[in-house]
Amino acid sequence: MPFDPASLTYDDRGLIPAIAQDAATDEVLMMAWMNAEAVARTLESGRVTYWSRSRSEFWVKGESSGHVQELVEMRVDCDRDCLLVRVRQTGPACHTNRRSCFYTAVRDGEEIEIMAPEAG
Amino acid sequence: MPFDPASLTYDDRGLIPAIAQDAATDEVLMMAWMNAEAVARTLESGRVTYWSRSRSEFWVKGESSGHVQELVEMRVDCDRDCLLVRVRQTGPACHTNRRSCFYTAVRDGEEIEIMAPEAG
Repeated sequence: MPFDPASLTYDDRGLIPAIAQDAATDEVLMMAWMNAEAVARTLESGRVTYWSRSRSEFWVKGESSGHVQELVEMRVDCDRDCLLVRVRQTGPACHTNRRSCFYTAVRDGEEIEIMAPEAG
Repeated sequence: MPFDPASLTYDDRGLIPAIAQDAATDEVLMMAWMNAEAVARTLESGRVTYWSRSRSEFWVKGESSGHVQELVEMRVDCDRDCLLVRVRQTGPACHTNRRSCFYTAVRDGEEIEIMAPEAG
């Protein structure tokens, strides 16, 4: 079946959550949002492109930092309301310079930092 | 720092997305939603508990199907508006009886099913 971005289920802002996973290590790197046009641009360009809710603009991941995400494969969930993008990540995915945004773990009721920023 | 579910950033429905990842294989299994009480219950019980938007009730994953998710570790992202729950998954995570909800891939513009339902 041909894939049509319009066939996905978007929320009332026209957005769908997209989970970015490192295709080489399977590490979950980040979660951000796409609209239908961002989904189409990601597939066409091979560069993962989100919709920035704070700036209300397209956000080609890594465009300013160089920490790009090259699309390896896009996957759709059973409800068609969440995307998984498997990527080749250049440099850290997180704006804090950590590999992943999920660097805080909850252990025995305490928040523990489990990942250090990469050397700049 | 002690972890407080109230310190997370919830959307205007009081919900935060939670990505479930198999702690053994690193496979991304599903994405669902939690409210602050679901976060607290998950940590207290060790059984991953979501908030069902369609039924407006707590949803202890696997309570009816037996396909429970035992919490291995909860992680918080840099913006504190998304959770990653690393789990020990019993049986398939998806209601279609597939291991993961992300069983549809987009390849060359076509939707391809990459995962079969498990034998019942």
